[in-house]
Amino acid sequence: MRATLHTLEQTIRQRRSADPSASYVAKLTARGRAKIAQKVGEEAVETVIAAMADDRDGAISESADLMFHLMLLLADMDVPFDAVLDELDRREGVSGIAEKAARPAD
Amino acid sequence: MRATLHTLEQTIRQRRSADPSASYVAKLTARGRAKIAQKVGEEAVETVIAAMADDRDGAISESADLMFHLMLLLADMDVPFDAVLDELDRREGVSGIAEKAARPAD
Amino acid sequence: MRATLHTLEQTIRQRRSADPSASYVAKLTARGRAKIAQKVGEEAVETVIAAMADDRDGAISESADLMFHLMLLLADMDVPFDAVLDELDRREGVSGIAEKAARPAD
Amino acid sequence: MRATLHTLEQTIRQRRSADPSASYVAKLTARGRAKIAQKVGEEAVETVIAAMADDRDGAISESADLMFHLMLLLADMDVPFDAVLDELDRREGVSGIAEKAARPAD
Repeated sequence: MRATLHTLEQTIRQRRSADPSASYVAKLTARGRAKIAQKVGEEAVETVIAAMADDRDGAISESADLMFHLMLLLADMDVPFDAVLDELDRREGVSGIAEKAARPAD
Repeated sequence: MRATLHTLEQTIRQRRSADPSASYVAKLTARGRAKIAQKVGEEAVETVIAAMADDRDGAISESADLMFHLMLLLADMDVPFDAVLDELDRREGVSGIAEKAARPAD
Repeated sequence: MRATLHTLEQTIRQRRSADPSASYVAKLTARGRAKIAQKVGEEAVETVIAAMADDRDGAISESADLMFHLMLLLADMDVPFDAVLDELDRREGVSGIAEKAARPAD
Repeated sequence: MRATLHTLEQTIRQRRSADPSASYVAKLTARGRAKIAQKVGEEAVETVIAAMADDRDGAISESADLMFHLMLLLADMDVPFDAVLDELDRREGVSGIAEKAARPAD
């Protein structure tokens, strides 16, 4: 996997304490956890709508927005993105097809 | 960045055509785009709630669920995850701090 | 129950064809189904966040926004709000406590 | 407006303290605020998806689920549904078309 997400995480962490008038990350961080969480929810809704409209460009753009704000939210909780990747690795490694099959589909 | 997401994407694409009784990916895929999109929305809501409850373990687990289902949705639209990373790279490269500052905070 | 929602539904239906520069309902309607649906999702997220923050005034305000946009969405689908109330009546009448008990809690 | 929502609100408030094994309201209430809020978010996502699929029956069913869980959430915050209706009345009375026009469309 490319360095994109790791680099993005570092950039976000650096900008959190920047001047809010010069950085979107600093501005949203200053508005607090609820506003960051709200953005995650909103971008997920927009991703869902793009998918339902079969809008590929929209899905790419909204997924990027969703990833960006999810990383901003994790940074606000001081959770490294690697913890999320560890969790994904753990599920795949421990259980593989068996666990997936056991999960209900809704 | 580790190979986790790239590997996950490959696994998801392979399992889409597996036996739905043996694979969660195949089962959810068989239920159609709307059900996959619904899961993305639901996992985002759970991530938001974990963040608001300041539940770090919950945020990690729900973020992993959100990432997993987002990749399943992108696969269903035949959108490579690299297209999302390209979009994140493009935003950072073209615009950097300036663009971020120009984005409204809500 | 007071006439609020019935009156609101009539007002929304009248304003849909008004001048978009003079009416929020007309403006959002002109932007299409996806934008109205997006607002329903966003206001629901804000309601969830207000509830998690135990913010009563916020919950009232966001619930009003949610109700308003839900009625706008139903109007866009030409679904009368009475159809939703009929559905709620039907569930309660037909099934009552028994059906509720039978529903899984998550 | 019919008595449906008022009756539903009373029923929900009565059942909150019922036996969780015999009442969905009591069961979900016992699981706590976060689980109720999660259901509000999930039903909103399902309403959005039904609207995007132009599924009228689905929109009616999911809107009923959304209304039901919204009222359950408000009850959990001890917020009377009349407070939401008051807010809707206030907006319409105080401001009417003018305020609506002033609201941004996104």
